[in-house]
Amino acid sequence: MEKDGIRENLDEKDSNIMLPKPSLDEFSHLSLDIGGSLIKVVYFSSNSNCLVDDNGMRSPEDSLEVSNSNSNWPFLSGRLHFAKFETSKINDCLEFISSKQLHYCGSRHHEAPAGDKNVIKATGGGAYKFADLFKEKLGVSLDKVDEMDCLVAGANFLLKAVHPEAFTYMDGQKGYVQIDHNDLYPYLLVNIGSGVSMIKVDGDGKFERVSGTSVGGGTFWGLGRLLTKCKSFDELLKLSHQGNNRVIDMLVGDIYGGMDYSKIGLSSTAIASSFGKAVSENKELEDYRPEDVSRSLLRMISNNIGQISYLNALRFGLKRIFFGGFFIRSHAYTMDTISVAVHFWSKGEAKAMFLRHEGFLGALGAFMSYEKHDLEDLIAH
Amino acid sequence: MEKDGIRENLDEKDSNIMLPKPSLDEFSHLSLDIGGSLIKVVYFSSNSNCLVDDNGMRSPEDSLEVSNSNSNWPFLSGRLHFAKFETSKINDCLEFISSKQLHYCGSRHHEAPAGDKNVIKATGGGAYKFADLFKEKLGVSLDKVDEMDCLVAGANFLLKAVHPEAFTYMDGQKGYVQIDHNDLYPYLLVNIGSGVSMIKVDGDGKFERVSGTSVGGGTFWGLGRLLTKCKSFDELLKLSHQGNNRVIDMLVGDIYGGMDYSKIGLSSTAIASSFGKAVSENKELEDYRPEDVSRSLLRMISNNIGQISYLNALRFGLKRIFFGGFFIRSHAYTMDTISVAVHFWSKGEAKAMFLRHEGFLGALGAFMSYEKHDLEDLIAH
Repeated sequence: MEKDGIRENLDEKDSNIMLPKPSLDEFSHLSLDIGGSLIKVVYFSSNSNCLVDDNGMRSPEDSLEVSNSNSNWPFLSGRLHFAKFETSKINDCLEFISSKQLHYCGSRHHEAPAGDKNVIKATGGGAYKFADLFKEKLGVSLDKVDEMDCLVAGANFLLKAVHPEAFTYMDGQKGYVQIDHNDLYPYLLVNIGSGVSMIKVDGDGKFERVSGTSVGGGTFWGLGRLLTKCKSFDELLKLSHQGNNRVIDMLVGDIYGGMDYSKIGLSSTAIASSFGKAVSENKELEDYRPEDVSRSLLRMISNNIGQISYLNALRFGLKRIFFGGFFIRSHAYTMDTISVAVHFWSKGEAKAMFLRHEGFLGALGAFMSYEKHDLEDLIAH
Repeated sequence: MEKDGIRENLDEKDSNIMLPKPSLDEFSHLSLDIGGSLIKVVYFSSNSNCLVDDNGMRSPEDSLEVSNSNSNWPFLSGRLHFAKFETSKINDCLEFISSKQLHYCGSRHHEAPAGDKNVIKATGGGAYKFADLFKEKLGVSLDKVDEMDCLVAGANFLLKAVHPEAFTYMDGQKGYVQIDHNDLYPYLLVNIGSGVSMIKVDGDGKFERVSGTSVGGGTFWGLGRLLTKCKSFDELLKLSHQGNNRVIDMLVGDIYGGMDYSKIGLSSTAIASSFGKAVSENKELEDYRPEDVSRSLLRMISNNIGQISYLNALRFGLKRIFFGGFFIRSHAYTMDTISVAVHFWSKGEAKAMFLRHEGFLGALGAFMSYEKHDLEDLIAH
């Protein structure tokens, strides 16, 4: 876990390890990605220790240690911190920033008027929508950075500078992938947030958003809430673990009397129609288990994203598809479904890969957009 | 309406015209397409009059007059009748067939044992699943014909022999398309039943099923039933007329504070996340109008099908996409959404077209699969 000068601890089970609580002024360079459902926060501390709260428990945010042997960012040495908030609870985010005094952690425009001194890099639609709120509550200006620019910059940073970052997932098996920096491009980046963006990446800053779909994480959560009365995305995702999609989905075998439709390569267990069984049964919503509803929904959406991603990869002859965004959350069944979809439709030609810091591509990209001299200031801090 | 020797009356408003009731023995050559949700029935009568019931009202089934000046089927002269039933109410279908004595209307195997004399051409998964039921209840054997073969044969028949059959639909405008028989192929056939099949058609009997999606008519109806408690597909479709998808869908403008994301060509009114607004609002299912739910669902599914269809058309350089299947039901908003999706994603390069007898492609194809000498018997009847 100490390769390439970078160590990360997202999966570490060290939450009970007592470490000295860092003082507030160690933080610098806050960046934000304010999406339709979630606000993603990245900030830096020169103290590379893992954060713990007053009770000695690890803080809710995850973090990533960066050392100055990292070739891409030789001037960075410390720790990147990650946190997220629901966009609908933006006040929680403002309080978090305020409590950690992170709003002083933008770039400093020494010649600007007093009120405009602190400028925070921010991306996502909320950088526009909530600019006035940040000004009013924290007295900071949001410097808006293009969303696609940030996603690509964040993905490129992770793929080049962090190891292990990318992995495959199929049949319950996780396999880390060694990325050859000289053979990274081109690839398809699929970012699954509330909606989905598909970006063909040809190099640093060289990319094109080639497609997308409105059937994304917001659809899973939105439809899922309405169907199951779940209170959170994670609760809905957890429900799906115990679910069986065959209860509600119409399978090929349901139509063909238990047989395959082998002539066109569809097995009896393939889904012919998502939620199709609800058509012919005299059941109401209350008669279905929320677990089964959640599972069918997750499978429908994951499979659909996998298929549209593959079709776009095919258009441009891309063999590698990296999936990011907060929809995935390292959830085994989600990754498995996406991988199977890409494998099925491409007949094994294309490969789905996932990113360990999947949800923070945009926020990391915004962080990277600080001027180099701003980041170099970090050394001085 | 009398071009190419074929007259049709699906849209005619002649339901009050009193016509002589045909005698039972005029019917012949029954064919069936038994899908996951619906059973589609086609049969022939040498009497070309439109059917009326005992009250002088037009029968529920639609029909299509075929005359022997039709070059493709010079031996056919009479009327093709169409009917549909829910697969879950298959007994209604069996009773209908029995009441019209249509089960004697297959091909006659004179040398077969008495019980096997009547063989009915049938396609769709139900031809396998319900074969025993047809044998038991009506004493007929189902001669199973491949589903994809039938869809293609049905579409080719309609596109060549019926005018007007194909039409475009956009911004509320319907435009019939004159099909040049020498310039019909290749095209993409998208059949939207419970699930969706996408078939590249290169000629008579020359085709390949290149893709499909499980997000189809069964998904609209199944999810729609669970979300709105509607009792029928048509009721759900009707609800969508009065709905407003912006109540539940998360638009680009909702994320970007009312602004477009013009850099990547997304207007503020584009849907960023289907059902995404349900994520952040403290509303339960009961707080949403069924009309709005239906509209969002219809738009999500229609748009998704349009997008995947376009991506497949692009793979093979196909400029024309014909949409069939009982999902569409000549519903203005469905066709509009599909057309807009194809237009948007293809930047105007590809064109969505619809078929007036959209739901009966498979059943018509099964009808066409009767041996020519069987069909020629029709003249003798």
